[in-house]
Amino acid sequence: MTESTAFTVACAQTDPVIGDIDANIAMTESAIREAAGLGASLVVLPECASGGWAFTDIDESRRAAQRVDDGPTIEAWSSLAAELGVWVCGGFGEIDGDHVFNSAALIGPEGVASVYRKVHLWNTENDAFTLGDRGFGVVDTPLGRIGMMICYDAWFPESVRSLALQGADLVLAPSDWVPNPRQQPGPSLAQIMTMSAAHSNQVYVAASSRVGVERGQPFIGSSVIVDHEGWLLAGPAPATEAIITAVIDPIGSRTDRADNPFNRPLGDRRPEAYTSSK
Amino acid sequence: MTESTAFTVACAQTDPVIGDIDANIAMTESAIREAAGLGASLVVLPECASGGWAFTDIDESRRAAQRVDDGPTIEAWSSLAAELGVWVCGGFGEIDGDHVFNSAALIGPEGVASVYRKVHLWNTENDAFTLGDRGFGVVDTPLGRIGMMICYDAWFPESVRSLALQGADLVLAPSDWVPNPRQQPGPSLAQIMTMSAAHSNQVYVAASSRVGVERGQPFIGSSVIVDHEGWLLAGPAPATEAIITAVIDPIGSRTDRADNPFNRPLGDRRPEAYTSSK
Repeated sequence: MTESTAFTVACAQTDPVIGDIDANIAMTESAIREAAGLGASLVVLPECASGGWAFTDIDESRRAAQRVDDGPTIEAWSSLAAELGVWVCGGFGEIDGDHVFNSAALIGPEGVASVYRKVHLWNTENDAFTLGDRGFGVVDTPLGRIGMMICYDAWFPESVRSLALQGADLVLAPSDWVPNPRQQPGPSLAQIMTMSAAHSNQVYVAASSRVGVERGQPFIGSSVIVDHEGWLLAGPAPATEAIITAVIDPIGSRTDRADNPFNRPLGDRRPEAYTSSK
Repeated sequence: MTESTAFTVACAQTDPVIGDIDANIAMTESAIREAAGLGASLVVLPECASGGWAFTDIDESRRAAQRVDDGPTIEAWSSLAAELGVWVCGGFGEIDGDHVFNSAALIGPEGVASVYRKVHLWNTENDAFTLGDRGFGVVDTPLGRIGMMICYDAWFPESVRSLALQGADLVLAPSDWVPNPRQQPGPSLAQIMTMSAAHSNQVYVAASSRVGVERGQPFIGSSVIVDHEGWLLAGPAPATEAIITAVIDPIGSRTDRADNPFNRPLGDRRPEAYTSSK
């Protein structure tokens, strides 16, 4: 009998206080403990869960940012991961020299496993953050091969494709989804982008979005957990500090995904036929 | 005062008879005339509307296929386009030497403007057709810059991206959409792929899918017309021989699309950050 590779993933929506690292550590600690209590082995927090998002410029975003090596939020999440035996993925402002990146960390019981720097900055984010300089990466963990993206990255199909081409089983997407000015009844565009990315790459996606209003910008929550065929397992969450969970099996699904004649999105690609701007 | 560049596009669902070119010419003629009567300047027909789809092998598909130069379906659609002053886009089996492609033609009042050969063959299609050998192309018409894809191509985000990078305003997608074995309540995956492609490329998409059952394979209809922000303008159509229409403005929307800070899917791309299998 094979050991099960399935586990519970949670998306925990929070409403960060801009600039208040301590308040946000307390808020995310509470969310992580609650999610662990629900059986989660992996807890995904929103984008910029450590310090808020709507900064005017880099000077201001830097005051709410931290280094990976000794940042207080990273240390708090690492301690919780070790104590509870869980993995945590969350967004934080990352200082590296003169730069402030809109980053996400993946932290396991033994510490930081991976840091991702948001590649696609949206709208006024360009004033407050530096463009991610490391592309997309996948890290091999006991839960599966995990990649990260952040919010607006999901609007670019190249993001999840880049991770899938590197063998990702699961994509984590800390997000601060905002209302679409022309939202129709039915799924949000964020959900549509997430489902299509999961389906067209046969990867699980867990997208955790914040709630609340920051400097006039409302956020929609609406977190979703989508399976490797693009279907909803949990969510969309309401626009409150909710936690959604689902059981997923990134490692166990590898054979099914590789052998699926109905949809073979990597095997049937034809790169020689594509127009590239590279 | 500027002349309006808006026009009505129609997606006309048909239920082709496999192998019966004459019956399908009559069926599509009726659909084209009806759509023109509804005010359509452009009528999109399903994939393989000329001769059916579920062929066993290339020998069989060849018997229902035709050359662009002198094929009876292409001639019939061209005559109708000239007579009615409309544009027609429809799928047909295309013979070129030893090859049979799953192709789509875009035909204007003055004749064939463009032929597209399906790049991504799905499942058993690989037994019955040759892989498209010309990639994706865009043609400049009085209605806007138009590209084509066929059905499963929409599962590959590279398809519409390739067309958008070539300046497409409008993508036409003759399709034979099939039921998904795990369909949830809400939009079909086909619709989700179409909406996400439109949104992430700021292009209109008109996807016309067939109905009926062919050799045991049912089709879902569910045609949609989606605007350049990814929202539904018409559809999903029922699984009957229905026609849906919408007014679209591919040329007139160019300025809005270029100046949109909310979503700048081409301008905010970062090709240097993407993993490529090329």
